Amino acid sequence: MNRLKSIGRISIAVACLLFFTVVASAQSQNSLYQVSTINALLQGVYDGQVTMKELKKSGDFGIGTFEGLDGEMIALDGKFYQVKSTGEVILVNDQMKTPFANVMNFKPEQTGEINDVKTFGELEKALDSIIKDKNYIYAIRIDGVFTGQTRSIPGKTKPYPSLTDAAKTQSVFDIQQTKGTIVGFLCPQYVNGINVPGYHLHFISEDRKSGGHILNGGIKSGKVQIARITDFRMVLPSNDAFQQASLNQDYSKELSKVEQSK
Amino acid sequence: MNRLKSIGRISIAVACLLFFTVVASAQSQNSLYQVSTINALLQGVYDGQVTMKELKKSGDFGIGTFEGLDGEMIALDGKFYQVKSTGEVILVNDQMKTPFANVMNFKPEQTGEINDVKTFGELEKALDSIIKDKNYIYAIRIDGVFTGQTRSIPGKTKPYPSLTDAAKTQSVFDIQQTKGTIVGFLCPQYVNGINVPGYHLHFISEDRKSGGHILNGGIKSGKVQIARITDFRMVLPSNDAFQQASLNQDYSKELSKVEQSK
Repeated sequence: MNRLKSIGRISIAVACLLFFTVVASAQSQNSLYQVSTINALLQGVYDGQVTMKELKKSGDFGIGTFEGLDGEMIALDGKFYQVKSTGEVILVNDQMKTPFANVMNFKPEQTGEINDVKTFGELEKALDSIIKDKNYIYAIRIDGVFTGQTRSIPGKTKPYPSLTDAAKTQSVFDIQQTKGTIVGFLCPQYVNGINVPGYHLHFISEDRKSGGHILNGGIKSGKVQIARITDFRMVLPSNDAFQQASLNQDYSKELSKVEQSK
Repeated sequence: MNRLKSIGRISIAVACLLFFTVVASAQSQNSLYQVSTINALLQGVYDGQVTMKELKKSGDFGIGTFEGLDGEMIALDGKFYQVKSTGEVILVNDQMKTPFANVMNFKPEQTGEINDVKTFGELEKALDSIIKDKNYIYAIRIDGVFTGQTRSIPGKTKPYPSLTDAAKTQSVFDIQQTKGTIVGFLCPQYVNGINVPGYHLHFISEDRKSGGHILNGGIKSGKVQIARITDFRMVLPSNDAFQQASLNQDYSKELSKVEQSK
């Protein structure tokens, strides 16, 4: 009987090992998961595609927005936040949906320091000096003291305006000497149309009371962590709005207008 | 004892069910797996990245090339073929590597017919009339009688030339009234730099004795099967050649020169 029990136990152990090996191997790289494309967002495809519950399965770190372009999303250490256009920061609920997001399980491969950078341009230069091999997407985390301007856009109703028009209603928050974390990505130019070429960074304060999409600003004494993405996955919406959107034009100018005010 | 055996068996069954559910759910969509980017290939990044053994895990259907740009790859019904520049078609071995490929588990969602199209331009128009919603990548399979020109490029050694230069040494095969299968993809313009915008099609004869990358030609009485891709995964090389390549220029002209001769 004991022998049979042992065989049973060993078989269960092997089956469980196989199961967890599959799950673990799927999570062992810096793999970026993306919902939709930036051109679709620029064209007003704001229907929610993926719930927060689903999105959380693909990462503990990232940025994005919500159905109707309702605020800025920041995922940090497994917690997902919404920076509303009122400035309020709340933890998302699992039923909320995103039309565009990038998340990953953040495993930093490189660290660095940034000191006394005051503008987004200076921040870019400081990061450029840390990040080599610009042919990849990079995930960026900076913990430090931030001074600058962030924004959040109030949610829109249908018919949805373009992102350029929606951004005209944005709230801008002036954040001074605030301890917190910058979360975002650097993308190469060749992802144009799919994601944002260059730096796309969001901020959240350590007290989780302020944040948003960074329009301008810099960092005093920041600890930088970088992860290179060599595995990129993108899931596209099947809705009519995505199908009918003009996704093949070059929206670089529109994009840079809504991204930063350098 | 029987009760303990039963508990053991049930536990094993549950563990196995969990295991296979994970495996099955990962394969339940039309998900495209891509190795590297088309701009990297255009710039001569021909180092093998992924073995055939690995590639086969991500699909039973697709196209690509081999280390050193050594011939054309066609995956059909789970078999992976190399069309050599001599015209010979062989089954690949698991150790061979690819620098660029697209594979998937092909699950057609739409069917159609194509009759009496003679040129690549006519073939494109015929496919355009079947495929709506051009904002996605589509996988295409056409079984029929092919007449046209295919090509294969002889393998290169380092320092690797660009694809434009390599293509100058291509062998062109004149294929007449030959029963077989076209395998390939349609990509939207917004993937420019990452994959080939427009149609990228390879052919293999039913007797598996001829084929290659289609430069021109059409189909008499072909059965078309189409799968829309809403899940796209791209794995990037970590080698020096990829890191140093100029991937951010627009190589549309170079690409259209090496892709077809309409």
